[in-house]
Amino acid sequence: MKAIAVISGGIDSSTLLYKLVKENWDVKALTFVYGQRHKKEIESAKKICKILNVKYETGDISTVRKLITKGALTGDIAPPEVPETMEHYDTLKQTIVPNRNSIFLSIAIGHAITIGATHVFYGPHMSDRGIYPDCRKEFVEKFNEAEKLANAWDEINIVAPFVEINKLDIVKLGNKLGVPYELTWSCYKDGKNHCGVCSACRERKRAFQESGIKDPTIYENESK
Amino acid sequence: MKAIAVISGGIDSSTLLYKLVKENWDVKALTFVYGQRHKKEIESAKKICKILNVKYETGDISTVRKLITKGALTGDIAPPEVPETMEHYDTLKQTIVPNRNSIFLSIAIGHAITIGATHVFYGPHMSDRGIYPDCRKEFVEKFNEAEKLANAWDEINIVAPFVEINKLDIVKLGNKLGVPYELTWSCYKDGKNHCGVCSACRERKRAFQESGIKDPTIYENESK
Repeated sequence: MKAIAVISGGIDSSTLLYKLVKENWDVKALTFVYGQRHKKEIESAKKICKILNVKYETGDISTVRKLITKGALTGDIAPPEVPETMEHYDTLKQTIVPNRNSIFLSIAIGHAITIGATHVFYGPHMSDRGIYPDCRKEFVEKFNEAEKLANAWDEINIVAPFVEINKLDIVKLGNKLGVPYELTWSCYKDGKNHCGVCSACRERKRAFQESGIKDPTIYENESK
Repeated sequence: MKAIAVISGGIDSSTLLYKLVKENWDVKALTFVYGQRHKKEIESAKKICKILNVKYETGDISTVRKLITKGALTGDIAPPEVPETMEHYDTLKQTIVPNRNSIFLSIAIGHAITIGATHVFYGPHMSDRGIYPDCRKEFVEKFNEAEKLANAWDEINIVAPFVEINKLDIVKLGNKLGVPYELTWSCYKDGKNHCGVCSACRERKRAFQESGIKDPTIYENESK
């Protein structure tokens, strides 16, 4: 069956894409350019698609960046560095891009209808749910219901297969599927290597540590 | 209270804006450029905002036009002309832009959070519901619930005040509010005047006829 996967080039969505290819979905990957600082993730997404021989397209909505500039990923404040110990909610909340997943999914659904795809996949997981409400199961379910109503003439399903598992389980799954994690990008900064200290890097490190799988990432700062 | 109104420059959203100003909302208007043929509506939206002294901004997402090109408003087929008699569903369905309202509302909500607005208004009405599922009350309600979940840290309300009234009632209301309908634009083509025969023109004509209010529009084709 025909599907779209909204991917970012990070660990979660790269694993998602490997999983969908393994399951024989006729999948097309869609990455959004929205004025994010960390453009390296787009290069990573392209590399992963090339390896998998998956159709790939970018949706460039950077023209609306000016409308959604509250967070550290699109706004004028720098992505926060976080201490080794538990990150604080207030720090992580700076990384929220207002309504990002609804925007991405809405456009992805419009594209799905255009190309005749019935499923739209994306990769939020359990570890996201504390900070990012649009990564929670209850949002996915309600949004799916709303979008079915909005597009009553077509079949549309929004699916988030990792919404009830943690990032470490995603890494374990990806390891089995052979995901080349050295090609994926998580860091919120756009340096040569992963910075190692932004919240995305901290989370990446921890997922590998907790899963017991070797982390192939080069970090500028190797602290735990 | 602070609000955003998604407006197009047509009859419905211009009336909506007049209503909100009358009700003393601190409202900002947002119009989307999405690769639509009928760019005149954007000029109309600007004129209406200028008269009302309402803040105005465009959200340019024409870069994703390539992703949502199924319908006659963004795609490669011409907007259909419709006969005087009842329009056929199949003809009108060509004017659906896949998932348009979810895309517009999602971005509008992201912008509302950015500027601290709590309400997002848009102007679908009862006469739309046959053809456009994303103009139905049940969609508005479900999408509102989904977006409250997606943006749990902020207050967000999606409101569609005309969802249970017909276009003719909107014209009656706008007439009382003094909406300068001669400045609004409905036609799906981008001619000097309204064509008079596309589905949007037919609907516009009918609303004035049925409401008993004088239609100030110049139509190229004056047939009923």
